[in-house]
Amino acid sequence: MSKGSFTLPGEAGYEKLTLELAEKWGADVIRDSDGTVLSDEITNAGYGIYSTICIIRDHNEWAKKNLDKLQQSFLMTSPRVADKDSIVIPVMEDFFAEQFAVNSSAEALVYWQVYDRTTDTEVARDKWSYDETKQEVVVNGITPWHTYTVNFLAYRIWEEISMYNHTTNNWDKEHLMQIDPVYPETQEYLKNWMTNWCETHPTTTVVRFTSMFYNFVWIWGSSERNRHLFSDWASYDFTVSPKMLNDFADKYGYRLTAEDFINQGKLHVTHMPGNQKKTDWMNFINRFVVDFGKELIDIVHNYGKKAYVFYDDSWVGVEPYKEEFKEFGFDGLIKCVFSGYEVRLCSGAEVGTHELRLHPYLFPVGLGGAPTFMEGGNPTLDAKKYWNSVRRALLRTPIDRIGLGGYLHLVEDFPDFVDYIAKISDEFRTLKELHGAGKPYHCKTRVAVLHYWGSLRSWTLSGHFHETYMNDLIHINEALSGLPIEVKFINFEDVKNGALKDVDVVINAGAAGTAWSGGDAWKDEALVEALTKWVYEGGAFIGVNEPSAVAGFDSYFRMAHVLGVDKDIVDRVCHGQWSFEVDDEAAAKVMVDGAYVPERVKCHLTDGKAKVLAAKDNNPLMTVNSFGKGQGIYMSTFDVNNENTRMLLNLILTAGKEATDGNYLTDNANMECAYYPESKTLIIINNSGETQTTSVKTEYGVETVTLEAYDTIIKTL
Amino acid sequence: MSKGSFTLPGEAGYEKLTLELAEKWGADVIRDSDGTVLSDEITNAGYGIYSTICIIRDHNEWAKKNLDKLQQSFLMTSPRVADKDSIVIPVMEDFFAEQFAVNSSAEALVYWQVYDRTTDTEVARDKWSYDETKQEVVVNGITPWHTYTVNFLAYRIWEEISMYNHTTNNWDKEHLMQIDPVYPETQEYLKNWMTNWCETHPTTTVVRFTSMFYNFVWIWGSSERNRHLFSDWASYDFTVSPKMLNDFADKYGYRLTAEDFINQGKLHVTHMPGNQKKTDWMNFINRFVVDFGKELIDIVHNYGKKAYVFYDDSWVGVEPYKEEFKEFGFDGLIKCVFSGYEVRLCSGAEVGTHELRLHPYLFPVGLGGAPTFMEGGNPTLDAKKYWNSVRRALLRTPIDRIGLGGYLHLVEDFPDFVDYIAKISDEFRTLKELHGAGKPYHCKTRVAVLHYWGSLRSWTLSGHFHETYMNDLIHINEALSGLPIEVKFINFEDVKNGALKDVDVVINAGAAGTAWSGGDAWKDEALVEALTKWVYEGGAFIGVNEPSAVAGFDSYFRMAHVLGVDKDIVDRVCHGQWSFEVDDEAAAKVMVDGAYVPERVKCHLTDGKAKVLAAKDNNPLMTVNSFGKGQGIYMSTFDVNNENTRMLLNLILTAGKEATDGNYLTDNANMECAYYPESKTLIIINNSGETQTTSVKTEYGVETVTLEAYDTIIKTL
Repeated sequence: MSKGSFTLPGEAGYEKLTLELAEKWGADVIRDSDGTVLSDEITNAGYGIYSTICIIRDHNEWAKKNLDKLQQSFLMTSPRVADKDSIVIPVMEDFFAEQFAVNSSAEALVYWQVYDRTTDTEVARDKWSYDETKQEVVVNGITPWHTYTVNFLAYRIWEEISMYNHTTNNWDKEHLMQIDPVYPETQEYLKNWMTNWCETHPTTTVVRFTSMFYNFVWIWGSSERNRHLFSDWASYDFTVSPKMLNDFADKYGYRLTAEDFINQGKLHVTHMPGNQKKTDWMNFINRFVVDFGKELIDIVHNYGKKAYVFYDDSWVGVEPYKEEFKEFGFDGLIKCVFSGYEVRLCSGAEVGTHELRLHPYLFPVGLGGAPTFMEGGNPTLDAKKYWNSVRRALLRTPIDRIGLGGYLHLVEDFPDFVDYIAKISDEFRTLKELHGAGKPYHCKTRVAVLHYWGSLRSWTLSGHFHETYMNDLIHINEALSGLPIEVKFINFEDVKNGALKDVDVVINAGAAGTAWSGGDAWKDEALVEALTKWVYEGGAFIGVNEPSAVAGFDSYFRMAHVLGVDKDIVDRVCHGQWSFEVDDEAAAKVMVDGAYVPERVKCHLTDGKAKVLAAKDNNPLMTVNSFGKGQGIYMSTFDVNNENTRMLLNLILTAGKEATDGNYLTDNANMECAYYPESKTLIIINNSGETQTTSVKTEYGVETVTLEAYDTIIKTL
Repeated sequence: MSKGSFTLPGEAGYEKLTLELAEKWGADVIRDSDGTVLSDEITNAGYGIYSTICIIRDHNEWAKKNLDKLQQSFLMTSPRVADKDSIVIPVMEDFFAEQFAVNSSAEALVYWQVYDRTTDTEVARDKWSYDETKQEVVVNGITPWHTYTVNFLAYRIWEEISMYNHTTNNWDKEHLMQIDPVYPETQEYLKNWMTNWCETHPTTTVVRFTSMFYNFVWIWGSSERNRHLFSDWASYDFTVSPKMLNDFADKYGYRLTAEDFINQGKLHVTHMPGNQKKTDWMNFINRFVVDFGKELIDIVHNYGKKAYVFYDDSWVGVEPYKEEFKEFGFDGLIKCVFSGYEVRLCSGAEVGTHELRLHPYLFPVGLGGAPTFMEGGNPTLDAKKYWNSVRRALLRTPIDRIGLGGYLHLVEDFPDFVDYIAKISDEFRTLKELHGAGKPYHCKTRVAVLHYWGSLRSWTLSGHFHETYMNDLIHINEALSGLPIEVKFINFEDVKNGALKDVDVVINAGAAGTAWSGGDAWKDEALVEALTKWVYEGGAFIGVNEPSAVAGFDSYFRMAHVLGVDKDIVDRVCHGQWSFEVDDEAAAKVMVDGAYVPERVKCHLTDGKAKVLAAKDNNPLMTVNSFGKGQGIYMSTFDVNNENTRMLLNLILTAGKEATDGNYLTDNANMECAYYPESKTLIIINNSGETQTTSVKTEYGVETVTLEAYDTIIKTL
């Protein structure tokens, strides 16, 4: 049994168990969790000690004295129709009164706006006033029968994660507030607090920041029938305050309005393309979070401790793929992982230590309230399934540490869980060692995923898979995360700046208008030119759902001439359609048993020449079109599973003019493998819940293995 | 047995049958058909005689001498990518060579255009030339990797209906050409021809014009895999010629380009909103067709004959709901009918005689090639089903005549068909008599269907039901055609000009961007204001599919504040949704057994207040929302059938604050009734293929009847 690279959640009162499991799982570090503490017996047992802090909450005493320094948000009232030339709009009616409190201070009111949504124009300030007692905006001299909304500023008076845990688990504790570090007073307070914390936690070796300052946006509503009005994991909406906005205006030379954030009530969803104002604001916030964050991290370092960041919840301004990220000086990045793409996200960040917090969390119930560590739960099976998603990405990319979180005592009743964690901990350490010796073998074809955010949103869209499953791209990212293929993420500017020169396959996947498809970026002919030329000269463009879609041109897909397909939009109802037969020979090259392409879009062949690999009725669902020396490949959508993942690999390899049955590829879609040339080690994994057999061609002959459900084999050739 | 108002297709060689059936069916007129002639024995038997002429074809001798006076069309080559700074585009490659011949005359070339479709800009004329020998356009000095198309003019060398019949029935006759009456020489020729025709057809009492001059657009492709490139029954694309375009420029003071018609290759589909240029062109063409049409009709009148127009195929410029229509001086309008809405369309035109050509056509096979008057056919059942669709509209609106067409001898083997036609002919004459005495009873609620075309496209969209079934509105029009409700068709300008003052319910039904939903018309706040005020004061707005939808505002449906629902568009992926329960009590008021609302759109409740009458998962499919004294009503889509038709009636009556179980309404959705107060006559019909029973409340008590499949009962109260 190997040792190290494992972070164990300890628990005071369960010292014996803590130390036993530390031994069994090969832990070198023990941590506390939300709701647990470590006793001296644990902290003095010779392990590294992680301590969790959430820097912006747990300061209620100071917060109550500084209610004007709580964090804020812009909110928009729901549209109301004026039945005469005036209207009264109660601003808080739609919102959860325990989350928000109106900020009608003089400096806040400057940012309030009333909008005529029928004409989409702002109502002049002299036509409205705010009645503080009634919490109503009164608007006069307006056009009857139009709809009106108020953009206003509100303090957030209950930290959202605390609020969620309270309401989900019926807690009855004091509501935690979140203080805003934008103010010098807050910064002073926090630096003192951080210093004091370091003083009083001498045994801590690593301070684990539960992110930084600003939570992802999560706006709750007044009605239980619509509690979650808006939630976007990658949004910057919870960073606003008159001070932050004024500081921005000073630095950037122009002032953002409430409407720049509110955006007709739509807000700026991460799944949609941004704009220059949003880019400026993101840059500004990142600069602020990095600068003040670094001050806190410096304090930690001054006490000889390391600073890791747990990338979750209050992550805003912590963009691991942004240039400034390095400046924080973090020693490690910890990512909780449900999926393979999250492993890749963590691995790719420029930071010393990459650590994964595995699932399941040691808690009685899991996500969505299903039992885990309680009667009716099967935490071992859960762990296998999570490990199954994570492991294939771990074959491809190095990670430094893994760990768990939660209440350790809960595992006492689940001895097979304890054994399974011991097994995968060993497996992880072996993988880490293999990566240490050198990169695993990968195919020649190089893939670039193309979307609005490019490398900034490498691997992730906005949060976890279950939050973003409706986007084709998260399925594709998840499939790619474990494939023996080099993958990078590029944006539209990158394409124009020559990023295609070391790429063989470009993937553009998403619904029309989204950041993932690209929206208005496709109006740029320079983009279309660059991609067209590149495909003509041998590249392959894989489009999924509504790739390169934008209205206003002769084709809806701007790359229709390359793809050979276009969407049936409503003005084509009088156009005829090419009939076709599925090309079984072409399909056989990429399809595997059990793979399928679901129907998401109704398309037609543009010139009848594309080969159809899958179809429903006369709707081409997967096509391959020759264009010059290259190809355009279309899929209606993509659902990640074992068979479809292999189909995608075959499609990519074919597009890259590689064989689909070369060395170090399994011949069973339910299994994958990785080969580490330096150590001549072949790992084969079974990604399915059933026993599977595969053969793998290697430089030393064919290896054939049979593996039980979810099992792994590590062989030296 | 009654007599008259019936047009019988006679057939030389079957004189005895012709005269027998004329007697049995009560015919007062005998007609010829395409493929049949009448003998002297028939024409001299004392009946009125209709003779069919198609004025623009059957002139091949003259056409061959005047090939420059054939009709034309603009065509666009399919997009081609330039792989260098020049490109060669063969213009005819995509098109059916038997239909089109390039017109590269000097006056035509002026209208040709080359487009860079990547930038959507025209390529300067000095960069391209046409190689007549190779039929290629050569373009130089262009941007590589852009796509290019050519807009060019082509003669149509095979009249489309003739072409269709040839290719469908493998005819081997000479191809008929269509001559263009835009030229003085053609007009002179046609007037002489018409005069000569009248001279040589002394027994003809009615000249039945198989429409006028210009066919609906029907562009055929070179590949059998995509033969019908484009077909739109209500398009004006087949009216162009350099002369017509030049005459237009002279009159309107501006010149239309090829691109004004080609529209990026999309053409101007009738299902999409038009624009001012299209309106001008339609007005110009109507003026021309009416003016020259009238000259021909005057000739007919001068010979003491009547002129009827058969509204089909070459109908362009014959808009029965346009002001100019009356100026033709037609004595009658004949409409072939598959559906109830076509009865209403015919009935509403301002013309002396309204005649229906019933189906089935007396032909061995029907639409789509299924057997009718041959082994395997059941023409009596076909006739019942067609009559079933037509009859309910005939209950509501007066029609003057009915008739059949085709080869009469085919009915000899189908004696029950002969009997059934006798029965429905009597039924028709009874209905005509009842209408003659006064209007049938109708409910108080008055409906206006609101779309881009308004009254111009009353009842119809573009052609027959089977050509337009994918539009919600044709289902609604068909349902409305037999309801005891007053219906009118209005456009968006009408709304702003006060058309709502005598309307109780407005229906707006269609996909976003279409003429039926309205597209950009909804950007106009005056429209939104007028409708909002009207609903607030008591009106009801029924929206179906994507009513009032247009991008750019806070809501996607501009009437969302009235409807209480809006569509889930892609930028709402982070917004929460109101949960709801179906309101069984509200649903019971409008739903009937077997009625349903199919899911077409994914929507959400805007403020949670709308009552949900039908839903799938959390998608509201039918909702009713109170707004002031009025209501907003939403349906995801509408499928016409007996049960859904009754559901729609109930919805309309409820919206109009009328009872759904009042007098002269059946209590069985498969049956309908009409009451004629002047004659105290109640008609009850069974619209289903099974025996049905219903009760009907009347001023004189409740009538309960049981009717066999498709049967009718006529009772005096």
